[in-house]
Amino acid sequence: FTVLYEFNEKVLALEKQGKKIVKLNVGQPDWRPPKEVINEAFLQLRNGRDRYASAWGENSLREKIAELHQCDAENVVLFPGSKQAIYSILATQANSGDEVAFFTPHWTAYEKICEQLKLSVKKVPLTQEQKFQPTAEILSSHLTKKTKIIILNSPNNPTSIAFSEKQEKQIQQIARENNSLLITDDAYRDLSFDGRKPRALEEGIAITHTFSKTFGMAGWRIGYSVTSPELARRLVSLNQITFSNVPVFLQLAAEKALERRTSFVEKIRKTSKTRALLAETLLSNLDVVPPNAGFCVFPRLKNNSDATNFCFKLLE
Amino acid sequence: FTVLYEFNEKVLALEKQGKKIVKLNVGQPDWRPPKEVINEAFLQLRNGRDRYASAWGENSLREKIAELHQCDAENVVLFPGSKQAIYSILATQANSGDEVAFFTPHWTAYEKICEQLKLSVKKVPLTQEQKFQPTAEILSSHLTKKTKIIILNSPNNPTSIAFSEKQEKQIQQIARENNSLLITDDAYRDLSFDGRKPRALEEGIAITHTFSKTFGMAGWRIGYSVTSPELARRLVSLNQITFSNVPVFLQLAAEKALERRTSFVEKIRKTSKTRALLAETLLSNLDVVPPNAGFCVFPRLKNNSDATNFCFKLLE
Repeated sequence: FTVLYEFNEKVLALEKQGKKIVKLNVGQPDWRPPKEVINEAFLQLRNGRDRYASAWGENSLREKIAELHQCDAENVVLFPGSKQAIYSILATQANSGDEVAFFTPHWTAYEKICEQLKLSVKKVPLTQEQKFQPTAEILSSHLTKKTKIIILNSPNNPTSIAFSEKQEKQIQQIARENNSLLITDDAYRDLSFDGRKPRALEEGIAITHTFSKTFGMAGWRIGYSVTSPELARRLVSLNQITFSNVPVFLQLAAEKALERRTSFVEKIRKTSKTRALLAETLLSNLDVVPPNAGFCVFPRLKNNSDATNFCFKLLE
Repeated sequence: FTVLYEFNEKVLALEKQGKKIVKLNVGQPDWRPPKEVINEAFLQLRNGRDRYASAWGENSLREKIAELHQCDAENVVLFPGSKQAIYSILATQANSGDEVAFFTPHWTAYEKICEQLKLSVKKVPLTQEQKFQPTAEILSSHLTKKTKIIILNSPNNPTSIAFSEKQEKQIQQIARENNSLLITDDAYRDLSFDGRKPRALEEGIAITHTFSKTFGMAGWRIGYSVTSPELARRLVSLNQITFSNVPVFLQLAAEKALERRTSFVEKIRKTSKTRALLAETLLSNLDVVPPNAGFCVFPRLKNNSDATNFCFKLLE
C-alpha cells in the first residue's frame, strides 16, 4: 500500500503540472448509468424518499434482485458496495484465527479485510503458465478445518479470467465438503464474454454483486449479498450498527437500472470485448493471458522485470 | 431487540389495516433539508460526480467541516453516518477484551457495536433523581486501565439532557488522565437550547457528528469524525476496505447545507424548544426531567410500571 500511495502522489503531482494521465490502475468503467436512473434518483429525493429506512434494503429492489438470482427477497441484503458486503460476511461468519482461502492473483481488499478482522489468509496460487486455471488439487491442498470461508472471484480482478461453469461447480463442491462458506464475488460476472447469466443462489454460498461495474455506478455505493436467510439476518444486524441503510432514493434509482439490465449488459459486454482485443494487440510485446471477461488485463513483463519500476517509468 | 422487532411488526400490521400511527420511537426529524441541497445533489450527479472517490471524503467539504471544529482538513474523515464512524473508531482503537465506558441511559447502538467487536461495556449509571447529571466520582469509579474509550453523548439520546460545558471539560480531563480516547457523539449538539457552537477539536478526543438530525438528512447517510491525523489515517484505511467513499454528489450537496448552517440551526432549535415545552406539558402526568435539547423526552412511568406493556397499550 505504501508503493500505491507513493504512486498516486506522483500522479497527483504530475496532474498539478497540467499533465493528462490515463489511469489504468483504477477499476472503474468509463460508461455512465442510464439517464433515467439519474433522473429517478432526483425524483425520489425530491419526493422525500431520504428518510431512515430498512437495514435490509428496499423490498421492491430486493424482489427484483431475488428474481435475478432465483431466490426470495429474504435472501437479499443491500450494502454501500459489495466490498462492505464481503467485509460483513467475514466479520459475522469467521472468528479471529479462522482461515479465509482465495486464489491469487487476487483483489488486494480480501487480504486487507482479513488483516483487519485478524483472520488468517490462505492464498491458493494460480500461474500464468496454467493460464490462471484452477485445479481441484491445488485448492484442496490449501484447505484445513479452520478454513471457514473460500472466496471465488470469477471473472477475477486483476486477471479478468473467468473460470468455466464446470470449474466453479467443482470449487463449490470442495467448499461444501470442507464445510466452508463460499463467497462468490460476482462484481465482473456481467462482463464475461460468454454471456453468463446472474448466478442462481444455492446452499452454502453467499453471492456478492454490485451496481458499480455493470451500470457505471461505482461512486453510488450500491452492492448486495444474496445468501441464506440466517446469514442475511446476521448481516442486517451488523448493518444496523454501521451504515444503517443505503439511501432509499439511490436504491429506487438502482431499480430503474435493473429494468434496463439485459440491453445494457449486452452493450457493455461488447464494448469490453472490443477493448480486450485491442489491449491484447497493443500488449503483444508482453506476456498476457487473453482475458475472457472485462475489464482488466494482467500482463507479465519479460525477463521478470520489476513491476513497480515499470509502472513508475510508464508514468514518466 | 426482540421486543423492538415484535413492536415494529405490530405497527406494520396496524398500518396495513389503514391505521395512522405516530412513531415516537424513531429518532428522525420531520424537517426536510434545504431545497438547494436537494438540487445540488442532482446537479452534481448529472455532472458525473458519481465516480470512485477519496476514502477521506471530498477536500472541499472536509475544509468546511474543519473550519466548524477549528482544525484542519487532515483531521476530518467522512462516513455513511456517524454510527459507522463510531463503529470504526472502536474497531481501530480497541482490541478484544478492552473496555468502553459510557453513561446510561444510552443509545443502544454503543452496546451492540461493543458486542460485535467483543469489547467489554462499562455502563456508568445516571439517575432520574439526579436529573441525569454526571459526577466525576461516578465516572472515575467505573474506569480501569483497560478502558480504552469513553463515549460522551451530550445532548444524550434518549434523555435529551446536555451536560454543562464545565461537566464536559471535567469528563475530558478524566479521560485524559486515564489515557482513554474520548469520543464525543455530538449528533444532537446543534439542538441544545443554550445554542452551543460546534465543538473545537482538542487532543485526546474524536468528535463524531452527522448531517442527519441538524439538516433532516437522516437517510442520506452522511456523518463524519474529527480527530488526530493518526487516528484519521487508520479510519481511512478501514473505509478503504468497507464502503470506499460517501457518494461525491451527496457530499457536495452537504456542502450547500453547511452554507445555510447558522440560520437553519437557529430555526430547528426554536422548533425543538417549542415542542419540548409542549411535550413537558402533555406528559406532566408522568415523571420527566425537562430536556435542555431536542428532540427526545424520556419520561418515567409512575409506580415503576412496565415500560414494554405501556408502549404496547399506547399503540393499541
